[in-house]
Amino acid sequence: VVGVVGSGDDSRPAVAVARRLGELLAREGWVVLSGGRNAGVMRAVNEGAKKVPGSLTVGILPNAAAAVAPDVDVVIVTDLNNARNNVIGLSSNVLIACGVDGPGTASEVALALKNGKPVILLGVDDLTRDFFQRMEGRLDLARTPEEAVQIIRENSFC
Amino acid sequence: VVGVVGSGDDSRPAVAVARRLGELLAREGWVVLSGGRNAGVMRAVNEGAKKVPGSLTVGILPNAAAAVAPDVDVVIVTDLNNARNNVIGLSSNVLIACGVDGPGTASEVALALKNGKPVILLGVDDLTRDFFQRMEGRLDLARTPEEAVQIIRENSFC
Amino acid sequence: VVGVVGSGDDSRPAVAVARRLGELLAREGWVVLSGGRNAGVMRAVNEGAKKVPGSLTVGILPNAAAAVAPDVDVVIVTDLNNARNNVIGLSSNVLIACGVDGPGTASEVALALKNGKPVILLGVDDLTRDFFQRMEGRLDLARTPEEAVQIIRENSFC
Amino acid sequence: VVGVVGSGDDSRPAVAVARRLGELLAREGWVVLSGGRNAGVMRAVNEGAKKVPGSLTVGILPNAAAAVAPDVDVVIVTDLNNARNNVIGLSSNVLIACGVDGPGTASEVALALKNGKPVILLGVDDLTRDFFQRMEGRLDLARTPEEAVQIIRENSFC
Repeated sequence: VVGVVGSGDDSRPAVAVARRLGELLAREGWVVLSGGRNAGVMRAVNEGAKKVPGSLTVGILPNAAAAVAPDVDVVIVTDLNNARNNVIGLSSNVLIACGVDGPGTASEVALALKNGKPVILLGVDDLTRDFFQRMEGRLDLARTPEEAVQIIRENSFC
Repeated sequence: VVGVVGSGDDSRPAVAVARRLGELLAREGWVVLSGGRNAGVMRAVNEGAKKVPGSLTVGILPNAAAAVAPDVDVVIVTDLNNARNNVIGLSSNVLIACGVDGPGTASEVALALKNGKPVILLGVDDLTRDFFQRMEGRLDLARTPEEAVQIIRENSFC
Repeated sequence: VVGVVGSGDDSRPAVAVARRLGELLAREGWVVLSGGRNAGVMRAVNEGAKKVPGSLTVGILPNAAAAVAPDVDVVIVTDLNNARNNVIGLSSNVLIACGVDGPGTASEVALALKNGKPVILLGVDDLTRDFFQRMEGRLDLARTPEEAVQIIRENSFC
Repeated sequence: VVGVVGSGDDSRPAVAVARRLGELLAREGWVVLSGGRNAGVMRAVNEGAKKVPGSLTVGILPNAAAAVAPDVDVVIVTDLNNARNNVIGLSSNVLIACGVDGPGTASEVALALKNGKPVILLGVDDLTRDFFQRMEGRLDLARTPEEAVQIIRENSFC
């Protein structure tokens, strides 16, 4: 299971990256787990994954009112609101942050590190990299979705 | 998605019922969602479901230390401990209690009713039936797994 | 810390009992902890407690939108919705159910028993008593607020 | 209610700052709310607050096994583990991060911003400041506990 987090803002460049990432992860046969909302990186990563026949996508929703991305196969409704951000990392073998453009994604990265989960920062700038790199925990950097997949393979995270 | 809850005690008669129930639910093409632990009703319902090719099982675990039932396909680790009991009903279209033999299952039934989810009590005695029947919420009674499936179909819960 | 749970319905007879209970608990010097909403047993128990100078009341709210009872001193906003029902018992030395008139209160009693917390059922009928009495856990019965206080004292729950 | 978060590591310079901060907050008559563990900033801020007669301190504990700081008046046991980090900010009018030395504190700051709560970063370096400053949300910077109190007063956060 690979967790993917990122902005719910559709205008971010990370959205196209997430679509490609979802497809690559699904091709490896890995389950794609995300925040599940019908917005931004969450929608795109599921869209990419479902291009691959036999893929499986899981969405961890904040509450019952949140619109679900159409390509989520298994919907988990937590009603925990932002505390659900902790469940995403805990349920993943490794977490990929497809950009860290807001506090929601920042909290997901921080909580995953706190819980001892490996994190891959994909396409982040130097400031984000420097901020997380000095913290405890296993952190890798990728410039492309292909690199992220390579890191997971080489480290046998999945 | 059909949620199934029940005792973690392997000696309960509900365990054999749960195995049969899991198989029937999977044959209908419904996802079987449970508390996911490797014990009692949780283990049995997943075992039954995975006899059916193409079935999908989801387990909502209380924490990372809990042993996972071998037939769970998608493992969600919440680290919420007993607060995870609320997530099981919220993520299900309908919740089946395969016996109400302890306070954990009683809390899952009560929380599902509180959240407005339909509940089916399967194989419970008169006391349990009477206790929940006077509460708000949609409650049905089944004597056999076959009856439970019939209730879901007739009411289009799934 | 004594947790007090019960119906959010203002028309229940348990509401007057809760007001008296809150006053008695506060006179003993115990902190009164509740679900904190401005309704039914929650409002009444805080109202009773704050008649006593120097008393302290804590409310565990389901979310930020919930109206807070005016006599709650410390407001904890969980945003967990009904999963907050688990926090009430966990944060109490003993839980008193001032009637079990709906599934919310039933879940709070069940979760407290599951978490190994002693529970006192105050003013419940035979059906509710019989339902919880056969479950694991420490359960006492009281007919009046005075009896509930007596049980806490005799067992040194606080 | 002022939430205070920071490292559980006793050797951090932030610990002495937290002790002074707790005292100043309590002198203003504000409730001091923290993660409640008997370590680092959490212990120190409660210690400082309880030097002031009539002060009130609240601790939001991750689970029942966590050691509680001796100066916490009201202990809330969530059993949510790191998801409790979301409850700290939600229950505070304003959150002060007394250093951001690890992923736990980083998650608390990020979640508070996500939930729309004002945050004051006290004694952080330029990297931490720059990382959070470009995110949505209300963020202030303080070099000393006195400055933090001044910011709360000027903005009527409490």
